[in-house]
Amino acid sequence: MSSVSMYQASVPVFIRMLGNLHAILSKAQAHAQAKGIDELVLTSARLYPDMLPLSNQIMIATDTAKGCAARLAGVTPPVYEDNEKTFAELNERIAKTLVYLQSFKPEQIDGSEAREVVLKRRTGEERLQGLPYLQNTALPNFFFHVTTAYAILRHNGVEIGKKDYLGNT
Amino acid sequence: MSSVSMYQASVPVFIRMLGNLHAILSKAQAHAQAKGIDELVLTSARLYPDMLPLSNQIMIATDTAKGCAARLAGVTPPVYEDNEKTFAELNERIAKTLVYLQSFKPEQIDGSEAREVVLKRRTGEERLQGLPYLQNTALPNFFFHVTTAYAILRHNGVEIGKKDYLGNT
Repeated sequence: MSSVSMYQASVPVFIRMLGNLHAILSKAQAHAQAKGIDELVLTSARLYPDMLPLSNQIMIATDTAKGCAARLAGVTPPVYEDNEKTFAELNERIAKTLVYLQSFKPEQIDGSEAREVVLKRRTGEERLQGLPYLQNTALPNFFFHVTTAYAILRHNGVEIGKKDYLGNT
Repeated sequence: MSSVSMYQASVPVFIRMLGNLHAILSKAQAHAQAKGIDELVLTSARLYPDMLPLSNQIMIATDTAKGCAARLAGVTPPVYEDNEKTFAELNERIAKTLVYLQSFKPEQIDGSEAREVVLKRRTGEERLQGLPYLQNTALPNFFFHVTTAYAILRHNGVEIGKKDYLGNT
């Protein structure tokens, strides 16, 4: 029986969706320019006052992707300054995350199903095995922030659709 | 080298997230009752006029989950009437989808990486292999609609948080 490797179940998913997110932000940037909208209005937009704005959604999506790949491989991910505000800066962050993700070789991540992963939470350290970490925490979190970024832009009238989110199948 | 089976990569993820979504809808129902809000205001809420309302987000999330499990197993999924409007009806839809998902045995889905999956699109039939279908279409779509349901409720002031979305890790 064939099966899915931990690498296949993680890195290519992140790369694909971050590429789509990059294209979505480019469309939002073009929309702001065409309509004469200050782009910081969009990158600081929220769906509710105590939800995080678009810029943070991009920061957490990229952090989740690089952190997941690094944790599964047992290496330390790069730390970003978290100071991106414009679409160009946010897309630069996505681009450097893509370069980092592309640097992983399958053999670094394959076989990490039961590898211990340590998450630093506000409440202390949480220890999980690789597979439940990927499936119950990293992937749901990643898709959450990519989708919320999309939702914030749609809510603000940017003309994007499900095809932009899914990319080419 | 161990690895992830197609069953593990699909059905338990759907079951877990649909359970979380069920609990989120129960919180939204309680919120509407406590605040004297007609719950149809919430189940018909949208983030933008040409986006689908909450009820449809639940319909598509459940359809994606049951359709994915069925396609990977090579069986025909149950068809629902798509007439749910209240929180109780939407949660009943989630509950029957959970029962359906729980009926799958791993051996029905394992080994479906290269199994041909046929998707009926408005533009015609699309044929994909099981693994790219799961990773590039089914999972992103599923998380999209679960997250959008969450976002609609958050946008309308329902007091839910990331913990409700992720569930217990």
